[in-house]
Amino acid sequence: MRERGLLIVFSGPSGVGKGTVRAKIFDSPDNNLRYSVSMTTRNQRPGEVDGKDYYFRSREYFEQTVHEGQMLEYAEYVGNYYGTPLKAVNQLLDEGYDVMLEIEVQGALQVKEKVPDGVFIFLTPPDLGELRQRLTDRGTDSDKVIEERMVKAREEIHMMSAYDYVIVNDVVDLAAERVKKIIETEHYRVERVIGKYEAMLEEFEEKEVTKL
Amino acid sequence: MRERGLLIVFSGPSGVGKGTVRAKIFDSPDNNLRYSVSMTTRNQRPGEVDGKDYYFRSREYFEQTVHEGQMLEYAEYVGNYYGTPLKAVNQLLDEGYDVMLEIEVQGALQVKEKVPDGVFIFLTPPDLGELRQRLTDRGTDSDKVIEERMVKAREEIHMMSAYDYVIVNDVVDLAAERVKKIIETEHYRVERVIGKYEAMLEEFEEKEVTKL
Repeated sequence: MRERGLLIVFSGPSGVGKGTVRAKIFDSPDNNLRYSVSMTTRNQRPGEVDGKDYYFRSREYFEQTVHEGQMLEYAEYVGNYYGTPLKAVNQLLDEGYDVMLEIEVQGALQVKEKVPDGVFIFLTPPDLGELRQRLTDRGTDSDKVIEERMVKAREEIHMMSAYDYVIVNDVVDLAAERVKKIIETEHYRVERVIGKYEAMLEEFEEKEVTKL
Repeated sequence: MRERGLLIVFSGPSGVGKGTVRAKIFDSPDNNLRYSVSMTTRNQRPGEVDGKDYYFRSREYFEQTVHEGQMLEYAEYVGNYYGTPLKAVNQLLDEGYDVMLEIEVQGALQVKEKVPDGVFIFLTPPDLGELRQRLTDRGTDSDKVIEERMVKAREEIHMMSAYDYVIVNDVVDLAAERVKKIIETEHYRVERVIGKYEAMLEEFEEKEVTKL
């Protein structure tokens, strides 16, 4: 029996560079992560493979899946639905794979409700970390720029609080390493391993009783 | 202003090899951890330096320190007290250093009460992880050996549950790497960084108000 894998939700504000960091992680020679194939209602394009690029489904099918609570998260863009089917994710997790979803913040908050024991990683732009520095140097900024930055910073800090980890995307390689370390150390967390030890103990004790 | 450091409590059953793993971590070229000097009531031996090897204090002084709630944890061995003074640890943490205590399980549980946001790492012997394997192979074990192992395994699993992480001491170098990764990733936990971002934002906003 393999241990159940971890659901890793990798998210952050749009434009922060989630896709680049995710690609770096998946390109690592030691990568063991899986990604889940999304479902969409948009038309299949030439060269795209159903079940590989996307699950291409009708609007009715998609809505039915949502209705049945079988969509981890979804959103509508330009008139089409995009979402993460729960079943495919659960299957990979049951097989013992860690599964990474790279999704927008709104999607991440939906997943959090369904899978509270997922690992939620927020990628933040370096400028949020450099707020203090900019504060000092800000003689160069107009009041409007400062005000815009403040609104954005306030929103991002607010979003962070629903996550487990915050990492800065200063250098892509470093950000990718941080994510990999987080995934490794999450496997050592007591709430994730103690069940395994308890199950071993129980199994052991049952065999002892059977022997008597 | 440096961020306050983390208190790392490294513990586990006696004989598991805590000291060896701790030494490996402190010997790393990139080590930034500090350790705290313990207080004891035993006699100073030739070559030992007060304030370096131990704080050598009288029984009265030690008991007074405990009474004032200024001892993170303590125990009595062979008629002498040994303990970790809170003040020295707090000073290092305030200076922004991560501080590692390598202590017995009873001491770790005392620290947990005083510093719940410490990072509690339980080092477990590989044989607990190999329980399942041994179960399969156990034709060779006498009932007495099996019973002893069961009592020990039950105790250890019970102790684990108060910790944050469980790592296996299979290979010293690997165990040391795991601890180092845990310390790094704990610095990315949202509850440890969000205050920093909020403080920056607040400071920024205060200056804006002042400017008006």
